[in-house]
Amino acid sequence: MPALELHPDRLLPADPATRAIARQLYDAVRTLPILSPHGHVEASLLLDDQPFRDPASLLVTPDHYVKRLLHANGVGLERLGVGVDEPTADQSREVWRTLCTHWPLFRGTPVASWFEAELVEIFGITERPSEATADATYDQVAACLEQPEFRPRALFDRFGIEVLATTDDPADDLAAHAALAADPTFAGRVLPTFRPDRYLEPAQPGWRAAVDGIADEPATYAGFVSALEQRRAHFVAHGGTSADHSHVDLRCEPLDDAEAERIHRAAYDGTATAAEATAYRRHLLLEMARMSTEDGLVMTLHPGIRRNHHTPTLDRFGPDQGHDLPLAMEYTDALRPLLERYGLHPDLHLVLFTVDETVFSREIAPLAGFYPSVYVGAPWWFLDAPDAIRRWRSAVTETVGFSKLSGFVDDTRAFCSIPARHDMARRLDAGYLAQLVVEHRLAEDEAHETIRDLVDSPRRAFKL
Amino acid sequence: MPALELHPDRLLPADPATRAIARQLYDAVRTLPILSPHGHVEASLLLDDQPFRDPASLLVTPDHYVKRLLHANGVGLERLGVGVDEPTADQSREVWRTLCTHWPLFRGTPVASWFEAELVEIFGITERPSEATADATYDQVAACLEQPEFRPRALFDRFGIEVLATTDDPADDLAAHAALAADPTFAGRVLPTFRPDRYLEPAQPGWRAAVDGIADEPATYAGFVSALEQRRAHFVAHGGTSADHSHVDLRCEPLDDAEAERIHRAAYDGTATAAEATAYRRHLLLEMARMSTEDGLVMTLHPGIRRNHHTPTLDRFGPDQGHDLPLAMEYTDALRPLLERYGLHPDLHLVLFTVDETVFSREIAPLAGFYPSVYVGAPWWFLDAPDAIRRWRSAVTETVGFSKLSGFVDDTRAFCSIPARHDMARRLDAGYLAQLVVEHRLAEDEAHETIRDLVDSPRRAFKL
Amino acid sequence: MPALELHPDRLLPADPATRAIARQLYDAVRTLPILSPHGHVEASLLLDDQPFRDPASLLVTPDHYVKRLLHANGVGLERLGVGVDEPTADQSREVWRTLCTHWPLFRGTPVASWFEAELVEIFGITERPSEATADATYDQVAACLEQPEFRPRALFDRFGIEVLATTDDPADDLAAHAALAADPTFAGRVLPTFRPDRYLEPAQPGWRAAVDGIADEPATYAGFVSALEQRRAHFVAHGGTSADHSHVDLRCEPLDDAEAERIHRAAYDGTATAAEATAYRRHLLLEMARMSTEDGLVMTLHPGIRRNHHTPTLDRFGPDQGHDLPLAMEYTDALRPLLERYGLHPDLHLVLFTVDETVFSREIAPLAGFYPSVYVGAPWWFLDAPDAIRRWRSAVTETVGFSKLSGFVDDTRAFCSIPARHDMARRLDAGYLAQLVVEHRLAEDEAHETIRDLVDSPRRAFKL
Repeated sequence: MPALELHPDRLLPADPATRAIARQLYDAVRTLPILSPHGHVEASLLLDDQPFRDPASLLVTPDHYVKRLLHANGVGLERLGVGVDEPTADQSREVWRTLCTHWPLFRGTPVASWFEAELVEIFGITERPSEATADATYDQVAACLEQPEFRPRALFDRFGIEVLATTDDPADDLAAHAALAADPTFAGRVLPTFRPDRYLEPAQPGWRAAVDGIADEPATYAGFVSALEQRRAHFVAHGGTSADHSHVDLRCEPLDDAEAERIHRAAYDGTATAAEATAYRRHLLLEMARMSTEDGLVMTLHPGIRRNHHTPTLDRFGPDQGHDLPLAMEYTDALRPLLERYGLHPDLHLVLFTVDETVFSREIAPLAGFYPSVYVGAPWWFLDAPDAIRRWRSAVTETVGFSKLSGFVDDTRAFCSIPARHDMARRLDAGYLAQLVVEHRLAEDEAHETIRDLVDSPRRAFKL
Repeated sequence: MPALELHPDRLLPADPATRAIARQLYDAVRTLPILSPHGHVEASLLLDDQPFRDPASLLVTPDHYVKRLLHANGVGLERLGVGVDEPTADQSREVWRTLCTHWPLFRGTPVASWFEAELVEIFGITERPSEATADATYDQVAACLEQPEFRPRALFDRFGIEVLATTDDPADDLAAHAALAADPTFAGRVLPTFRPDRYLEPAQPGWRAAVDGIADEPATYAGFVSALEQRRAHFVAHGGTSADHSHVDLRCEPLDDAEAERIHRAAYDGTATAAEATAYRRHLLLEMARMSTEDGLVMTLHPGIRRNHHTPTLDRFGPDQGHDLPLAMEYTDALRPLLERYGLHPDLHLVLFTVDETVFSREIAPLAGFYPSVYVGAPWWFLDAPDAIRRWRSAVTETVGFSKLSGFVDDTRAFCSIPARHDMARRLDAGYLAQLVVEHRLAEDEAHETIRDLVDSPRRAFKL
Repeated sequence: MPALELHPDRLLPADPATRAIARQLYDAVRTLPILSPHGHVEASLLLDDQPFRDPASLLVTPDHYVKRLLHANGVGLERLGVGVDEPTADQSREVWRTLCTHWPLFRGTPVASWFEAELVEIFGITERPSEATADATYDQVAACLEQPEFRPRALFDRFGIEVLATTDDPADDLAAHAALAADPTFAGRVLPTFRPDRYLEPAQPGWRAAVDGIADEPATYAGFVSALEQRRAHFVAHGGTSADHSHVDLRCEPLDDAEAERIHRAAYDGTATAAEATAYRRHLLLEMARMSTEDGLVMTLHPGIRRNHHTPTLDRFGPDQGHDLPLAMEYTDALRPLLERYGLHPDLHLVLFTVDETVFSREIAPLAGFYPSVYVGAPWWFLDAPDAIRRWRSAVTETVGFSKLSGFVDDTRAFCSIPARHDMARRLDAGYLAQLVVEHRLAEDEAHETIRDLVDSPRRAFKL
């Protein structure tokens, strides 16, 4: 059986002199606490602190990174536990076997790196996943999950997480966050994130019900805006520091009050056209920026995803199954109305993410290199991997340096992958800075100061 | 005279440790047979097995890679033999001299690498091309071409080609393919490729004549579709495994039967508008996908080329003279109607090529990383070069790994360049995998298994 | 205090074998004269040869590269001397302190490299900029500026500038250029560049006044065109070799004479629509190409910038304050009408620049690889930095080699940064060529010949 081992120099540059400097830089930040300012772990996981159910439903079924590549190679989602709420042990083992048997598919991808790091560092696995080792590794992980030191809070501490942000619906009462904050036995900071997408899209099914759910006077524009402001205040009161926005484009265009009112009523009555719905969304995104200048919530933008590309899969298995796909994006003109109004506002932080890497050097870095409010988001989703992160560093640093970055964002639903992802980011930062040092573009003392700043960036960008 | 030599480590990474691993990986696949699943060599070349005529008409005049850079530096196409069907020896020598005199223009381009490899490995040339060496190298190549071991079949064997796909018009009777297959003295597999572009473009001159040429009832939509199905069946019967499609964009949009019929008749009568012609092409491309799910032909897509950009050159010299130029492309939304219908069909293989490298990480890899039918095409045309191939590997691997790739595709009219091109691809694969090994992102045994798989990929992707 | 030193191997590749070759290549061109065929230094600077006023107004206030990153980190432009014509010594010192205090912001950017090189090589500074060293370095630079060897002409000679092109309005009488050319005590060549943008944009404020300023019959299209031709002739007579064009897109579309006349008159009367103004600009750009085929002025195209993105900043501080921002661009179709007409004209040189790096491999290199008239512009503005230059070399070389490049273009207003910028370019060229040599893609003698050619490229591309 091939052994599974994590080399201490993994992901550091090949050139020996560069690697030596990178290793020193990495060692300086290796054990610093994790700041995770944006992600998809639930607060209730930590509040309830129940044992994880089984290996597959912890590590396979909810992770669309893992599922998509298996699916692309002919493994139907039904074979990965999707749609089974409470799998039996046999079902879970079968999903695990499917994963292990197909392990070579993940070669060269960050999923392999993260997963192998989790197996070794969290569960003590010493053999590479394969058909032959599937049962033994399943048993070993399953046995771990029964131990108290593998419960969510224990892992949270072991991972060294200082701050973890969740992603929450505006209607959420945030009771879990309140209970966690009030719990003297839990020291971590778990912060809510205001995610109002579905309230800003009148063309989406369920919009009216959503509005009804938060507003006292849902039929009026003023009532709706007031409700959004109140829900944001609720999030701020529960420690929230950011609002997250993900629409198909970034365009922001103001409507005057009468037009906003007219479209709101039409949308509420179900008679708004598609064009009106889009215009309303673009207006509301601008309103979100206005509110951010007032309540201070950092505004993060995650545009450019065609959600649920394959409708039959959506119909059968629901969202988040790996067929959200990137689109080309435009930022410079789309954000201009917002930035003309609020771009120099001292309380606005606007963090720009992308899955279209062409905008890194063309638009995002130039915008963040002028507007005090704009921050460069870390590589996101498909770009959250070693080579892509290197391309990103290369694309943005020369225009914007290191001072206007979001810091690493794991954006994950896979709780156990959090430390591996942050570790990867720190190794790549060390490698990048080491290259600058070896090429005499940065002094070694500057590199050491910079790598600590980079790990700490989310504190500044996300107002943690 | 500067010597012309091929270094055994050419194109391998500079770092000594990485190079050592890359050399081992390359050695493991160096002599494996060549699978060439898409290209532009003619079957008749191998059927007739006549000696190549002369150095210029073998190596210069038909190769738009060679011609374009000379043209860009002021050498008119008429000086490169274009338009001369049967050049005299003096004419051929003059073309050769022109090439050799301008040899420094090719520095840094893959054309130099391929051409120099051909000169050394096939023709035994030992001096770098230049004005001073032009006559001697011309004589040496010309002398070779008179020898039996330089006839097409002998070179086919010497190159180690196992499978060679041609590109053919649907109206082709494929007699040359049939004769080759029936010839007991020729062991190679030479497969036709169905290339129906001009049948799908009613706005192009000659469309009606083309339709008349294959259909019994050309005036009706049903008759036309039936004819296409029959021609595809003819290709399948002659060993064809793929159909190739190259239109200016990738959009696929269904028409209902009545509308398809209406536009077909209008096009046949010469009264279709430009918009109708485009709509019909987008509908027919979707029909091609439907047929592929039925007859199993792999569907390769080569979009985004503005053909014959400079009309005066087209008028004077005809197509394929080096001024087909790339356009920005969109895949995610364009292919959605096709993938909604057929994306999970077990018999569909859809190989996506591009000359717009921005779509590698943004669209092609994400699509191939979910849809079982979608494969990532190798770097194509302007991107078929060492640095571009490295960028491509970096852009796609982290999202899609190594399992959903087309394998290397030479796509060439230059028969003698086939081994040099495949050799280049293997060296670059070795270098990429070696880097993963040195950075401890892949184990060495995994890299060895992977590089063999990569060479073998066309067998799977193209159903060879 | 950390020392400020310039390592002799800065910007050369990390790998020792590659670095050794790069160092030899760099040494071969290190001291060659500087050709600066496009930039924004004023001819009057050299004619008047007055001492530079003070450190801040020389090195900080006019340089939008420096200002933008400070602004992005909350330093208002008013704190950087913007809007103060004649700063007091205290004001200048305060601006300098602000810069030095924020010095870490520039880490990883080329601004740091250029600025540090200027401080060391021109002004003999030996300590890194910081709050602690600000006063001492200010005093040292200020003392230098009082010495005769720091006057503009002395620096021009010390920098080794052979040719310097300015950028000038068509209405300029070029008296400063004439006086410089007539001055027997000044040996440098200072050439004007014809920059007619504002004459081609009827929708911009001031267009009619501009036209009135150069034309005898400004109300007619023929009169306007004739005036442009005469102004171009004036530039040619004063040694001008190029015309520079920067519009939001590159599209060129001909109008017939009657339509051109009609729109001209409407524009002159202030009644042209936005669409007419755009159509007229696209027509006039084509006319500029026609004139270039007649008078031989090289045509340089710098498209794709959204100027003055933040209107309140424009209103308060004027243009060129760091908020000109890039847009995605298209070249292949946009330039087709121009290239269909003039692309093979022997006297046309068309140099294509971009701030959208996606077009390097997709459009610019393919165009320059076919059309004799088209040259690839050096990386521009946001892309004028080590990693971006490496990406550019990688993106264009394989398609177009080294023969169709503009050569390095500094495009700067920062006179003292000229040598550092050209030095950076030579180091990066050396590194790129060394990599080709180490990978056995280029022989060492070819690399040596090529690096000299690269430094000399502007002579050919710009007809110097």
